[in-house]
Amino acid sequence: MKTTLNLETIYAPIHAGLARIPALIRETLDTPIPKIRAMVSNFFSKDGKLLRPALILLGAGLARSLQPGDGIPSERNETAELYLAAAVEIFHAATLIHDDIIDSAPLRRGVAALHVKSGPQAAVLAGDFFHDRAIVTIFRHGNDRIVPLFLKTAGEICEGEVLEISEKKNINITEEIHLDIIRKKTASLLACALQTGAFIWGMDPAKAEALGRFGNFFGVAFQLIDDLLDFTGDEREFGKTLGSDLEEGVYTLPVIRCLTTADRDKVVRILYSRSHSRRLPMLQEVLEKSGALDYALVKAQGFIAEAKRELEVFPPSPFRTGLELMADYVLARKR
Amino acid sequence: MKTTLNLETIYAPIHAGLARIPALIRETLDTPIPKIRAMVSNFFSKDGKLLRPALILLGAGLARSLQPGDGIPSERNETAELYLAAAVEIFHAATLIHDDIIDSAPLRRGVAALHVKSGPQAAVLAGDFFHDRAIVTIFRHGNDRIVPLFLKTAGEICEGEVLEISEKKNINITEEIHLDIIRKKTASLLACALQTGAFIWGMDPAKAEALGRFGNFFGVAFQLIDDLLDFTGDEREFGKTLGSDLEEGVYTLPVIRCLTTADRDKVVRILYSRSHSRRLPMLQEVLEKSGALDYALVKAQGFIAEAKRELEVFPPSPFRTGLELMADYVLARKR
Repeated sequence: MKTTLNLETIYAPIHAGLARIPALIRETLDTPIPKIRAMVSNFFSKDGKLLRPALILLGAGLARSLQPGDGIPSERNETAELYLAAAVEIFHAATLIHDDIIDSAPLRRGVAALHVKSGPQAAVLAGDFFHDRAIVTIFRHGNDRIVPLFLKTAGEICEGEVLEISEKKNINITEEIHLDIIRKKTASLLACALQTGAFIWGMDPAKAEALGRFGNFFGVAFQLIDDLLDFTGDEREFGKTLGSDLEEGVYTLPVIRCLTTADRDKVVRILYSRSHSRRLPMLQEVLEKSGALDYALVKAQGFIAEAKRELEVFPPSPFRTGLELMADYVLARKR
Repeated sequence: MKTTLNLETIYAPIHAGLARIPALIRETLDTPIPKIRAMVSNFFSKDGKLLRPALILLGAGLARSLQPGDGIPSERNETAELYLAAAVEIFHAATLIHDDIIDSAPLRRGVAALHVKSGPQAAVLAGDFFHDRAIVTIFRHGNDRIVPLFLKTAGEICEGEVLEISEKKNINITEEIHLDIIRKKTASLLACALQTGAFIWGMDPAKAEALGRFGNFFGVAFQLIDDLLDFTGDEREFGKTLGSDLEEGVYTLPVIRCLTTADRDKVVRILYSRSHSRRLPMLQEVLEKSGALDYALVKAQGFIAEAKRELEVFPPSPFRTGLELMADYVLARKR
C-alpha cells in the first residue's frame, strides 16, 4: 500500500494546534484602520502551506516527547506555541510582501501580489506593520532563548536578500555563494521556527543544535526545489509566475551549474538576449539537456538526506516522523 | 543681549553624550556586507539634527535631576542612554528610508534619497535592516518599560503612515484627522524618545506622563512647522524639495485650512490643475493671502505653549531649560 505524501497526513500530529493558527493570525493583525484590514484579509485570502507554524509545533512536540510523560502540562507554554506559530507566519508574510516588491513579482499564492493590488507604497507599510506585530508577539510569548534567535534570524534574512541583490546578473556567481544566500534567506527562518518550538519546552542545547541543522539542510533543499519548480513547475499549481527570478537577473542553481559546463556560452547568450518571451523555453531546454536540472535535484536530495540524519538523535515519536515526512515532501512537492 | 537660538546652545547640557552618537550608530549598523555598508555610510554622510537622540539624553538628564544628588551613578544606565539614543536615530532613519520610497521623494538632507541612489529594492531592505538593528539594540539596552513603549510606537508610526496614504487627495480631510496622523507619524517617536530617557532612570509614572504629553505637543508643532517650511522654506537650507507633499496628494494644515475658507474653489482648481510647475507658486500666493499660513503658525505656537506648560512639574535644571529652548527652536527653525 502506497502512502500518499500530502501535507494533511504530515500535519496529523499537530492538526489541532495548526487549525487554530489562521484565527490567531487575524487576531494578531487586528487593527481599526480600514486600509490595513483590507490588506490583511487580502494577503491571507488564500491559505498558505503554514509550513513555518507547522515547524514550530513539530519542534515543540519533539521537545515535549523528550520529557518524561510528555512533560509537565503548561498552559503558558501551550499558548506560547500557538501565538509564536502565528507570529512566525506573519513574520514570513512581511518578508514575502517586501520581497515581492523587490522582485517586482506579479503573483503570490496564485493571486495578484499585494504591491500590485494595493500599490507599492502601501505594500512597504503593510510589510512593516506585519513585521512589527510579529516582533511584538515574539517579545510577549518568547523567552530569553527565543527572542535573540528571532532577532538574529531577521538580520540573516535581510543579509541574504541584500546579497541576492548584490549578485544579480553576475554570471560568475559561485555555487557556494548561492547556497549561502538561500541558507540565510530561506533556511534560517525554518531552522528558527523549529528551534523556537524546541526552546518553548526547554530542549537541551545539543539536541536543539541538531534540530537547527536539520532546519538548515531542510530549508536549503526546500529553496532548491522551489527554484527548480521555477523552471519545471505548472504555473497554476505553483501559484507563482515561472521564470520570474530569471527576468529579475537572479540566477539559481540550475543556471549557475550550467554556466560551469560546455553550454556556458549558450546560456550566456540566452541570459543576455532581449527576447523575454522566448528566454524561459530556450533556457528550459538547455538546462534539461545539460543535466543541470538533475544536478540541482540531486543536490536537494543530498541535503534532505543530511537533514534526516540529524533527526537520529531523537527517539521515535509522531513529531520526528512528521519531520521526516516533511523532508520527503519537499522533494515530492509541486507547489 | 540676544541669545541666538541654535542647536549647539540647546544641546550644551548633553554635548558630551551626543558627540558619541554618530560613532555608536556606525557601530550598531556594522556589517561585513559591502552593499549594506555603502548604504549606511551613504545615508549618514550628512549629519542629521540628532533630534531624537537629544531627546533621549534630555529625558534621561531630567530623570536624574529628580533624584537626590543627581542619582546613583550607574555605568549600565549611562551605556543604555547612549545605545538607545543611537537606536532611536537608526529607527527613525528606517522610517525615513521607507517614507521616501512611499513619497517618491528625490532629496533627503540635501542629497539624493537612498532609493534614488541605490534603487527602491535595496532601499526597502536597508529600511528593514536599520529597523531590525534598532530593535535588537532596544531589546538589549531597554528595560520592561522601554521595550513595550518602542513596539507600541512602531505600530503607531505605521498606522499614521497608512492613514496618511488613505487620506491622500481627500479635499474633505478634517483638521482633526490630519492632527491625528501627524501625532502618530511624527510626535509619537519624539514622545517615546523622551520617555525612554526617563524610563532608564526610573522616572515616576505621573512625571513620565507629563513628559510624554510634552513630546506629543512638541512633536505635532514640529511637524506643523515642517509642513509650513514645505511652502515657505528655502529649498537648499531645508534640504528637501519644496511642495513635494502636494505633488504626492498629501494635504497639510495650510491647505486643509484654506479648503474651509472662501478660497476653497480656487484651491481645488489649483490642486486639480495639471500644471505641476506652477502649482506651488500659485498655491503659495493663495495660502499667504487667505491667512492659512498664519493659521498653521498660530496652531503650532499654541501647541508649543501647551508643551511648555507640561514642563512646569519639573524643578529647574539645565535639562528642563534644554527642552524649553528646543520648543522655542521649533518655532524659529528654518530646516
